[in-house]
Amino acid sequence: MRPSGRAPDALRPVFIQTGFARHAEGSALIRMGGTEVLCAASVEPRVPSFLRGKGQGWVTAEYGMLPRATHNRGPREAARGKQSGRTQEIQRLIARALRAVVDLKALGEISITVDCDVLNADGGTRCAAITGAWIALRLALEKLVRDGVLPAVPLKGQVAAISCGLTEAGAVLDLDYAEDSNASADANFVLTADGGIVEIQGTAEKDPFTEAQFNTLMRLARTGTAELFHIQTVTVNEALAS
Amino acid sequence: MRPSGRAPDALRPVFIQTGFARHAEGSALIRMGGTEVLCAASVEPRVPSFLRGKGQGWVTAEYGMLPRATHNRGPREAARGKQSGRTQEIQRLIARALRAVVDLKALGEISITVDCDVLNADGGTRCAAITGAWIALRLALEKLVRDGVLPAVPLKGQVAAISCGLTEAGAVLDLDYAEDSNASADANFVLTADGGIVEIQGTAEKDPFTEAQFNTLMRLARTGTAELFHIQTVTVNEALAS
Amino acid sequence: MRPSGRAPDALRPVFIQTGFARHAEGSALIRMGGTEVLCAASVEPRVPSFLRGKGQGWVTAEYGMLPRATHNRGPREAARGKQSGRTQEIQRLIARALRAVVDLKALGEISITVDCDVLNADGGTRCAAITGAWIALRLALEKLVRDGVLPAVPLKGQVAAISCGLTEAGAVLDLDYAEDSNASADANFVLTADGGIVEIQGTAEKDPFTEAQFNTLMRLARTGTAELFHIQTVTVNEALAS
Amino acid sequence: MRPSGRAPDALRPVFIQTGFARHAEGSALIRMGGTEVLCAASVEPRVPSFLRGKGQGWVTAEYGMLPRATHNRGPREAARGKQSGRTQEIQRLIARALRAVVDLKALGEISITVDCDVLNADGGTRCAAITGAWIALRLALEKLVRDGVLPAVPLKGQVAAISCGLTEAGAVLDLDYAEDSNASADANFVLTADGGIVEIQGTAEKDPFTEAQFNTLMRLARTGTAELFHIQTVTVNEALAS
Amino acid sequence: MRPSGRAPDALRPVFIQTGFARHAEGSALIRMGGTEVLCAASVEPRVPSFLRGKGQGWVTAEYGMLPRATHNRGPREAARGKQSGRTQEIQRLIARALRAVVDLKALGEISITVDCDVLNADGGTRCAAITGAWIALRLALEKLVRDGVLPAVPLKGQVAAISCGLTEAGAVLDLDYAEDSNASADANFVLTADGGIVEIQGTAEKDPFTEAQFNTLMRLARTGTAELFHIQTVTVNEALAS
Amino acid sequence: MRPSGRAPDALRPVFIQTGFARHAEGSALIRMGGTEVLCAASVEPRVPSFLRGKGQGWVTAEYGMLPRATHNRGPREAARGKQSGRTQEIQRLIARALRAVVDLKALGEISITVDCDVLNADGGTRCAAITGAWIALRLALEKLVRDGVLPAVPLKGQVAAISCGLTEAGAVLDLDYAEDSNASADANFVLTADGGIVEIQGTAEKDPFTEAQFNTLMRLARTGTAELFHIQTVTVNEALAS
Repeated sequence: MRPSGRAPDALRPVFIQTGFARHAEGSALIRMGGTEVLCAASVEPRVPSFLRGKGQGWVTAEYGMLPRATHNRGPREAARGKQSGRTQEIQRLIARALRAVVDLKALGEISITVDCDVLNADGGTRCAAITGAWIALRLALEKLVRDGVLPAVPLKGQVAAISCGLTEAGAVLDLDYAEDSNASADANFVLTADGGIVEIQGTAEKDPFTEAQFNTLMRLARTGTAELFHIQTVTVNEALAS
Repeated sequence: MRPSGRAPDALRPVFIQTGFARHAEGSALIRMGGTEVLCAASVEPRVPSFLRGKGQGWVTAEYGMLPRATHNRGPREAARGKQSGRTQEIQRLIARALRAVVDLKALGEISITVDCDVLNADGGTRCAAITGAWIALRLALEKLVRDGVLPAVPLKGQVAAISCGLTEAGAVLDLDYAEDSNASADANFVLTADGGIVEIQGTAEKDPFTEAQFNTLMRLARTGTAELFHIQTVTVNEALAS
Repeated sequence: MRPSGRAPDALRPVFIQTGFARHAEGSALIRMGGTEVLCAASVEPRVPSFLRGKGQGWVTAEYGMLPRATHNRGPREAARGKQSGRTQEIQRLIARALRAVVDLKALGEISITVDCDVLNADGGTRCAAITGAWIALRLALEKLVRDGVLPAVPLKGQVAAISCGLTEAGAVLDLDYAEDSNASADANFVLTADGGIVEIQGTAEKDPFTEAQFNTLMRLARTGTAELFHIQTVTVNEALAS
Repeated sequence: MRPSGRAPDALRPVFIQTGFARHAEGSALIRMGGTEVLCAASVEPRVPSFLRGKGQGWVTAEYGMLPRATHNRGPREAARGKQSGRTQEIQRLIARALRAVVDLKALGEISITVDCDVLNADGGTRCAAITGAWIALRLALEKLVRDGVLPAVPLKGQVAAISCGLTEAGAVLDLDYAEDSNASADANFVLTADGGIVEIQGTAEKDPFTEAQFNTLMRLARTGTAELFHIQTVTVNEALAS
Repeated sequence: MRPSGRAPDALRPVFIQTGFARHAEGSALIRMGGTEVLCAASVEPRVPSFLRGKGQGWVTAEYGMLPRATHNRGPREAARGKQSGRTQEIQRLIARALRAVVDLKALGEISITVDCDVLNADGGTRCAAITGAWIALRLALEKLVRDGVLPAVPLKGQVAAISCGLTEAGAVLDLDYAEDSNASADANFVLTADGGIVEIQGTAEKDPFTEAQFNTLMRLARTGTAELFHIQTVTVNEALAS
Repeated sequence: MRPSGRAPDALRPVFIQTGFARHAEGSALIRMGGTEVLCAASVEPRVPSFLRGKGQGWVTAEYGMLPRATHNRGPREAARGKQSGRTQEIQRLIARALRAVVDLKALGEISITVDCDVLNADGGTRCAAITGAWIALRLALEKLVRDGVLPAVPLKGQVAAISCGLTEAGAVLDLDYAEDSNASADANFVLTADGGIVEIQGTAEKDPFTEAQFNTLMRLARTGTAELFHIQTVTVNEALAS
């Protein structure tokens, strides 16, 4: 039995509110159970210096966690004067995930930064961030089309992410903090709606795992992201209709 | 006429949701018009080294702003590697305001940190932070009493803050960003429910102002904080009753 | 009785030496009792990037304290790798005070930085810094006129600052360290010679104070700054005559 | 055809020199083609504070790259004042890989830090670092046994890593820089000699990849690491025999 | 002819004022021509961790330059967030010079930090700092004897420093900034009153110099420091007599 | 007797391997006994901003030490976030030594950075770095001539460095760590092949030393560098011939 009583292949309840960050060109506050991440996409009409004059755009991401998003208060990274290795690893992952589905040439010399800030943490924050960031990005791109800046939304697909892991209850989907901190292995899958793999990160937390176990986790991830792609689509359609 | 159409002595609509930060001992998400600040109080059973063994507690605060809380995205302080002078000034102000109403001896060797993070900014963030932080602090202290850690809530009073300023529409209460960025002077008043002054910060943004003008601003501040004290009381009572 | 035996409305002896920083375009070493601050104004023929091309100048300030200016040696900020919140707060205050009396349009695309470095500290360093900085700034501007860079001194007024506080000896003017560290409230007033208020910062160090008490402090501040404006005028006249 | 003319499943020539870092308790200079990493294990008789008193040891890793290890000189991280996100990500990966095969309880209150410094870079530095780091760690642990500090080598297995990727020449093993910078996807596999998976990191650099492609990469990785485990064993045996 | 018209072996006028830093246990404001350095010695009853329990004391130094001590304003190191290589090099030199004449065993578990802050710079600041720092240190040690903390002043000798250089006017003593910035070589000599050499730093700024030239510079240094030792002695005697 | 049994005027065995850093325009791995430094010269077709448009080039150096180059592991400077004063002092010394023999005008608007990274440390790392850096620089300049970028090698001479010191075995050449850490004085000499002095740094580690002792050290240095100049010449000739 999972601590939450969920079935092995059950996601936590997902709730997404668009427009939470009022000034952002696109934003989504995504809740997956006790995890809550505010994703805000910011558009700037310029590109980093390494891309200047190359006729393409850029998409990047930053990640942060409020000090008391967690069970015990953590130090504020701005006060410590540096971002942890974990923070940098996660924001690089989010950015790669988003770029995998953007047509940077079609974007033109525009940069989009998606800020993903964790307001409440209960496991799976990086995956929730990716799933929410895609919505924020999509809404920002739709705005650029509405404003006549771009002729069409330069997206090649839809991306979402979910964690899976090996726990005392077996292989399970969408680990919460209680599961995550005791899992013998966990993996994050970043997948596209048309079945492609964008990123896989599997880590043995205790003992090495087998290829068969890994394949089971990938099956679960496909189940979970199918549901997330549906929720993303419904959410974006509602936001565009209003 | 004020840009918002408000009367000179009218606050923006105030809405406060307690318990938003699920892990915090006390928390309040305060909205004043387009400004939204998440205040979360964290309790730790120890004091900073300069107070060790002195038989008293400590209350401090940290302040941050999400990068896209503002009209244009600002750099993330954690990524820049330091907190701006403005950030440090504000968090020192919030902490002094809270300590002015706490009986640190009665608190005992306990530290409380109140994190105030701005999710959306439209002027007056430091004042909203103080008003919300007092609620978060009060709820955390009530929890310490309920948990048997403290015999009584070690609060000497109730504190709230509001900004006033001299604008084209004259002396006005609770400036939003549009007013704040054009005001010729603005002042922040941190007051207690029993009429005491905790902190006054008045600044001429353009030309120096007169003592008469300053007194008008203080009158407005008393009007505004009277309303805030009422809202604080109602909010805390509802939270404690539930 | 005050620890120093001074009357409640008595300033400490003030002594100002101009030209102490030999390379600076204007400088003043100001002593107020045991507090001693070296103020040096540096002129540069350019403005920060946010002002470029706007046809106006800029005035800013930096503040520092020598490690052994104080009773006990404090850490050197350059060695710690960052300026404290207190330092940043003070240098922002000094800069605002100076800008309040400068006609930045008339200054043209010129920047002036006034460095205020505390050589000896005995309370009231930020106020002494503002009073001395105005002299350094004035002398630098006079030099720009003498050098034919500016047609006239682009100053709209004269600014000085003084602290007042509530102590065991009642409301008193110009607190030294012994008084400052025990005051129940203290306030810094930045005023102009024609009676305007540039900045007020009043803080309850122990218990909140009343409006009547605050008004008494403002009366004292007017008395003190009147004397400082006179000393500034005499000092500048002597410096220009020599 | 691969740029190097290698067969798709061919490793680059591997050469390992033990004892290069003369002061280290264990060290290995590993060359894989044009990539060269110096791995040095340092033993300290204490553990980080979060483990103190828990009766277990710790293994960690640090990673660096000499400024001119690369085609164009990169900035020195010590001079920039911070480690890049990439550096932190890699050193966290190396450390997790090593800890997966160490019996931390059997190690006792001892810390081992393995420094992996890239002297020459031509792709695959993180994988070479892991493969070399295991040798350095093993030799350091053998020394602790020889010195009578430990009764037996507290290793649960043997770990090595290799990169694979999808390039114009199809799925290939052990990418060099020329391949790596043009691959449409690449994956790093950290495997154990008994067939376990310690870590998988697969990333689509251009377009998402399929599960079938991913499985092909994993097959290649098993081939490559089999060879690396053999080389590790021979190298360690020679070092212990001398 | 030297720019200043001085004879090749002539020091600039030296003036030393003790007690300038009112709170310091010993202090000296030393002027050598247009160079002016405030040296303040601070005593602390503890030693750095690497010396704890070894029954000996420590003497260290810190060096700084006010931003407008120089012809053109330099950036404030505290604002830049780090000390320059030049600053660190100089403060290490001052500290070594002082330690060469202190009996650290006799000092006991006491630390003395001598802060050397340049108020005005016109060449030779590091040498002036050493000469002044010895006086500040001596006065602080005398105070420890007067206060009964130490039975005798734990000094083994007297140390002073002077620069010499090869300029268009030949080999000269005590270079000012005009000479220093055009010298083809310059050397700093730290000598003791009994003829010992504590430190020599000779640098070819343009072309390499010969051993004969170097010996000439050393002769000049002996002349200059003889005078400085006399001034130190007179200054200390006067300070102790008052 | 010296700990190593060497004669007082004997260098340690010197071995230099060119081309170790495969991507660098010139490189030398220099071993002097147990000290081993990798020197890599990098050419860039631009100069720092302070030289732009002045029609001259620049040569600079950076120095680092691998964490476990030493007997006990030292902290990684990149992880600490800053370079130590010692590191900065050494890299400034190396750079000055190299610039003393380069004709910067003839170099044109080109920068060369020589990275000197210590792989194994046993005393004398800064001197080995200078001796090796000259070879790396020379090879990089030869490549610029071969590539047609420069008409001739813009070198005015040959530079090498050696340490000497006063130890229990008397005045000795080329101190290893065991000698260096117990020497009563040590000095580093940077000399040119035609007999010029580029830099002298002599330091009394315990008691001041005499001029006669210093002259003995300089004699030893001339002996040692004569041998180093020969080795440099042979090494460069072999590298150019191959």
